[in-house]
Amino acid sequence: MTQPCIICVAITGSVPQKSDNPAVPITVPEQVESTHAAYEAGAAIAHCHVRNDDGSTTSDPEKFARLKEGIEAHCPGMIVQLSTGGRSGAGKARGGMLPLRPDMASLSVGSNNFPTRVYENPPDLVDWLASEMLRYDVKPEIEAFDLSHILRARQMADAGQLAGTPYVQFVMGVKNAMPADREVFDFYVKTVHRLFGTDAPWCAAGIGRHQIELNDWAIAAGGHART
Amino acid sequence: MTQPCIICVAITGSVPQKSDNPAVPITVPEQVESTHAAYEAGAAIAHCHVRNDDGSTTSDPEKFARLKEGIEAHCPGMIVQLSTGGRSGAGKARGGMLPLRPDMASLSVGSNNFPTRVYENPPDLVDWLASEMLRYDVKPEIEAFDLSHILRARQMADAGQLAGTPYVQFVMGVKNAMPADREVFDFYVKTVHRLFGTDAPWCAAGIGRHQIELNDWAIAAGGHART
Ligand SMILES: [Zn+2]
Ligand SMILES: [Zn+2]
Ligand SMILES: [Zn+2]
Ligand SMILES: [Zn+2]
Repeated sequence: MTQPCIICVAITGSVPQKSDNPAVPITVPEQVESTHAAYEAGAAIAHCHVRNDDGSTTSDPEKFARLKEGIEAHCPGMIVQLSTGGRSGAGKARGGMLPLRPDMASLSVGSNNFPTRVYENPPDLVDWLASEMLRYDVKPEIEAFDLSHILRARQMADAGQLAGTPYVQFVMGVKNAMPADREVFDFYVKTVHRLFGTDAPWCAAGIGRHQIELNDWAIAAGGHART
Repeated sequence: MTQPCIICVAITGSVPQKSDNPAVPITVPEQVESTHAAYEAGAAIAHCHVRNDDGSTTSDPEKFARLKEGIEAHCPGMIVQLSTGGRSGAGKARGGMLPLRPDMASLSVGSNNFPTRVYENPPDLVDWLASEMLRYDVKPEIEAFDLSHILRARQMADAGQLAGTPYVQFVMGVKNAMPADREVFDFYVKTVHRLFGTDAPWCAAGIGRHQIELNDWAIAAGGHART
């Protein structure tokens, strides 16, 4: 466990609204400012969603471009990771920002339930998003909402659909998906080691009240933390 | 491992057509005949799908009623399990046969990818199917296409949505869902033992070329086999 701990900061996310917490940054300048504070505090990766002015989610490439530029100007060396998640758009609109060539982008490789609906990642869309990431030299972060997603990443890497060693993020604590379960977490780590090698980087995100718990587990087990 | 081995036979399934294999039973009389042969050979559970006359899948309660009657007449004591799977219908049509009060019905509690599409089991439909099974005293077989589905079954049992100890079936080898992976299989068994007790029954189904392999694993580990 000699790797330095990487802190990945998720500015804004896709769910919270100003009505939940007035401190949530919504506009691009607010997001850049908030990312800069996290950068000063040591965060190495900025996981980015963007919003419309009314706070609703979007995948608008123009908004992503301004956010990426702002972070690059204010946070030199910080890794910019743009979300292709399904809460912000549908179908190929989810990958419309990949031509911006961010350092990284999130990639869901399977489907699962969310609190009130199905998180749909149909196989052909997954394949297309992966191919766009190869085309624009964007490193994917595999969002593992369930165990099979880790095994699917291995298959996709074997098929040449992912460049290099996949960087897997375990997402735990989403209602109706995988709960924050310690034995499952340990098996996730074991599976990443088995499939990608003991040096493969990984990170973990706990949703809501599970955030701190997952950070503790991840840092103690040699992974990276999403805050 | 002193439980007798239960053989569960899936007559017809939801995918194969006569054009794939002329021996696939499609009509209800063909299905009853084929189930009877499996019963004579020792199968204890009949996992049932029904088809339209043209071979396409359906959830038609009238067809299910005739199949259930035929099996009960020809195979005394055999457990009849009707499929509520999404390959045979959409929305609440998937549960339209539950008022027939079969011994068991399959229940998917999460979503996942299938070879070419998303297998959609939205939370409200899962809750409704479970409530109908309680109402008509139908024992669910939890179809675990991924690890979180086993944990979800535990949560649903805790919430009073499932009666008794859930009976979990591991489904492995479906493209884009969970592959037939030995370490995952062992962790599935471990998770069932942890969450439902070491006496909890479970079974495993390998799809296509993985069928025999999964039967071997399941029988050696004290589970039941789906053929
Ligand atoms: Zn991360
Ligand atoms: Zn995100
Ligand atoms: Zn079975
Ligand atoms: Zn079935």
